[in-house]
Amino acid sequence: MRNDQSVNVTIWNEYLHERENEVVADIYPDGIHTAVAEGIQEYTSASCRTATLDQPEHGLTKEVLAATDVLVWWGHKGHDRVADEVVARVYQQVLSGMGLIVLHSGHFSKIFRQLMGTNCSLKWREADEKERLWNLEPSHPILQGVGDYFELDREEMYGERFDVPTPDEVLMISWFQGGEVFRSLCTWQRGHGRVVYFRPGHETYRTYYDKNVRRIIANAVQWARRSVDISTVDAPNTPPLEPVPNQSKMPIL
Amino acid sequence: MRNDQSVNVTIWNEYLHERENEVVADIYPDGIHTAVAEGIQEYTSASCRTATLDQPEHGLTKEVLAATDVLVWWGHKGHDRVADEVVARVYQQVLSGMGLIVLHSGHFSKIFRQLMGTNCSLKWREADEKERLWNLEPSHPILQGVGDYFELDREEMYGERFDVPTPDEVLMISWFQGGEVFRSLCTWQRGHGRVVYFRPGHETYRTYYDKNVRRIIANAVQWARRSVDISTVDAPNTPPLEPVPNQSKMPIL
Amino acid sequence: MRNDQSVNVTIWNEYLHERENEVVADIYPDGIHTAVAEGIQEYTSASCRTATLDQPEHGLTKEVLAATDVLVWWGHKGHDRVADEVVARVYQQVLSGMGLIVLHSGHFSKIFRQLMGTNCSLKWREADEKERLWNLEPSHPILQGVGDYFELDREEMYGERFDVPTPDEVLMISWFQGGEVFRSLCTWQRGHGRVVYFRPGHETYRTYYDKNVRRIIANAVQWARRSVDISTVDAPNTPPLEPVPNQSKMPIL
Amino acid sequence: MRNDQSVNVTIWNEYLHERENEVVADIYPDGIHTAVAEGIQEYTSASCRTATLDQPEHGLTKEVLAATDVLVWWGHKGHDRVADEVVARVYQQVLSGMGLIVLHSGHFSKIFRQLMGTNCSLKWREADEKERLWNLEPSHPILQGVGDYFELDREEMYGERFDVPTPDEVLMISWFQGGEVFRSLCTWQRGHGRVVYFRPGHETYRTYYDKNVRRIIANAVQWARRSVDISTVDAPNTPPLEPVPNQSKMPIL
Repeated sequence: MRNDQSVNVTIWNEYLHERENEVVADIYPDGIHTAVAEGIQEYTSASCRTATLDQPEHGLTKEVLAATDVLVWWGHKGHDRVADEVVARVYQQVLSGMGLIVLHSGHFSKIFRQLMGTNCSLKWREADEKERLWNLEPSHPILQGVGDYFELDREEMYGERFDVPTPDEVLMISWFQGGEVFRSLCTWQRGHGRVVYFRPGHETYRTYYDKNVRRIIANAVQWARRSVDISTVDAPNTPPLEPVPNQSKMPIL
Repeated sequence: MRNDQSVNVTIWNEYLHERENEVVADIYPDGIHTAVAEGIQEYTSASCRTATLDQPEHGLTKEVLAATDVLVWWGHKGHDRVADEVVARVYQQVLSGMGLIVLHSGHFSKIFRQLMGTNCSLKWREADEKERLWNLEPSHPILQGVGDYFELDREEMYGERFDVPTPDEVLMISWFQGGEVFRSLCTWQRGHGRVVYFRPGHETYRTYYDKNVRRIIANAVQWARRSVDISTVDAPNTPPLEPVPNQSKMPIL
Repeated sequence: MRNDQSVNVTIWNEYLHERENEVVADIYPDGIHTAVAEGIQEYTSASCRTATLDQPEHGLTKEVLAATDVLVWWGHKGHDRVADEVVARVYQQVLSGMGLIVLHSGHFSKIFRQLMGTNCSLKWREADEKERLWNLEPSHPILQGVGDYFELDREEMYGERFDVPTPDEVLMISWFQGGEVFRSLCTWQRGHGRVVYFRPGHETYRTYYDKNVRRIIANAVQWARRSVDISTVDAPNTPPLEPVPNQSKMPIL
Repeated sequence: MRNDQSVNVTIWNEYLHERENEVVADIYPDGIHTAVAEGIQEYTSASCRTATLDQPEHGLTKEVLAATDVLVWWGHKGHDRVADEVVARVYQQVLSGMGLIVLHSGHFSKIFRQLMGTNCSLKWREADEKERLWNLEPSHPILQGVGDYFELDREEMYGERFDVPTPDEVLMISWFQGGEVFRSLCTWQRGHGRVVYFRPGHETYRTYYDKNVRRIIANAVQWARRSVDISTVDAPNTPPLEPVPNQSKMPIL
């Protein structure tokens, strides 16, 4: 059940760029996951843990997931190295109620593609360009404290068509200096779980230190927190609630 | 491209019950697929072919799918016997524009579950009971020629909660004698393809001879026909359409 | 801004049946509004006030609405007696962020029809029949504490087609003994405000004493509470955020 | 019923700017309505008539509307001069199945605001700037024959937040040179009618001669054509379809 005290968050990061590329290492010396966790704690009383690709079961054991209300996901070059068994476990957790916040290049992660039921492709370009994100729904809990728009001076470009099912909610649309647009902050329900996609966050920029980005991720974590834990795997055979006169004539199969 | 002349339909059926159970064999001596094909041809000039589980590649080769505008799917006890490779091929065809009409127990087929991104579970009961399907959208192309409601005297019950993402359109809701309700005719877009789910059609009833059921499937086939053939697999790196001043300062990755 | 302490609720009731019909007066001696207010307070710390048709400005002055986070609406035979000026005021309050919970026969109120942009018609019957409401979204905040379904032994029937725009969320669907179905608990966003429609509540039944009905209204009030106060009346002329080279050549109008 | 032969279109224009402003008169000497009608006929076999504000009943008599499958609407400075009685008539026609295509500044027309149930406000600027419209749904009938994007060299800017209910479909999003974005081509169903909003078309630009703009309006007219003529005004009292045991005990009201 939802409670107002605290939300248990696990921030997952493949944690590869930060250990292989000096530019990225300078920006995120303790990894993107650590910067994201700090941002969440700046705005909430959430309890945050982190998990990475190189840990056993990528740090996403049954026990960890059972204790997680919301999972945050950053991946890019290591998508294929995430074990199918772990993806299947995360998938069932989301469907039974765990929240999932997918960041930036996580659009191509196995878990996001499986939940969307599409390829999740898009246009992209690394050109150090300006992104301006427009706030379409200032009354939405995820956008509390965010103004009419905010800007990131340098980001990677993602352009439409973003191959996802029509979102339940399109909360922000990005304008890019180079001429494209993108649905940058979207939500979908899958099973009993809430899924959020938030576009910014290329590893060579200081995006996860930006106050608006931090605020939005923190709000999203609060909004997507688990409220139930109900598996949707089984299809129960159920007796009738009202008289069914023909039942006795039913052919035996 | 859409054309008004003809639509190429492939009706796929696992074709197991009809060869193993006398009750079913009596009702559908040439298989459910044949009855469905006859129904489509009663109301359209569609060109219909059929395919079954026991054929090589389940009858769904690259050539067959390339020549298919809309695929109709009936499966039940053989879901697990459908090869993953064939499912992956059908999946990409739908995402690039092919229509897909999923019938009755096909809710648990691999292809439907993959496109939905959920478990697609539901309640069920075989009690020979009455189903009344209410028409919520008489202006929708799929419901042309269908009245305010229609009844099936005996059907299997499917009850909510149906574990699917919120449909783009809920076109019919069923009332069951035993006390349940169900969203019986729904549509979703996935990639560039249109997906339709239509509930009735348990193998021990004469459902696919019912004129309303036939009309709806025939209409659905017209509505879901392929209009484009665009793969969504790749994410292209694209040059800017407007000047991007910072581009030269871009860090080399 | 949303806060976790308290929500200010105004329950509006035309308060006519209770004073003209003995059956209704016996069930709701202090009016439906009072029973609804008691139900909300049973499950929340909301601050509730009431307002009725016969008060000056129907009790919905600027001051009252400015101090209202969520307005609950029950009306039936007096829809036409609600002044257009008051409706216009409530309308703008909803669009700028106030929540609105519309109950039962309020489907035909001026305010609901104006917010929907449709006629909001439906089928109906008073036959003392059973209604079973199925819970489609147990993870939704409005359905916290409500089981898989609940029953009302005697209610008025409302049947589809309910002439409303496709809801953002369909949370419950009703089964009626007499053979119909209905989307009984739905939500829509209009402007910055959240609108909820909840079907049960015919004046000749004890519906607003039912614990599930009370729980749902109480939850809805929490969920729909105002989070912003932003008018959407004006369309601002705004200067460009990026250089626009052609601007000097603009024709003077 | 839908037929493939021909669609009856009425193009309504307030026809004020063209007779009061030389710049506009030079571009549209026979009025915007005439240019729009020519564009529709370039791509369809639709039968087009026009109607303007200064005609009796604004040219939208019962007879004209009864013979109209799709109404196209251009208005700007004369919104307030459209009689409420005519708006009410158009409104009921849309709800009973007539298509409506609202162009550009028609976002603030009485008919569009009534159908949306919101204020329909937006940001705007006249700065002779570039608009690039991105195609999000190339498989949609309205976008047949339109590429990945198209550009208009000079247009008025409209920026988010566009105060409309979440569209059923967002088909195009605009990028503006001055830094804004806008959902430029959207659809909603209201009652049994299909409503399309298409953004471009400021009177001082040659927008309605653009081949992509013409193609989209022509496609929209085909897509939104009336398929039924069913009033949604009345709420019928209906007898039960199944036995209702308690009916005799029903209190008489």
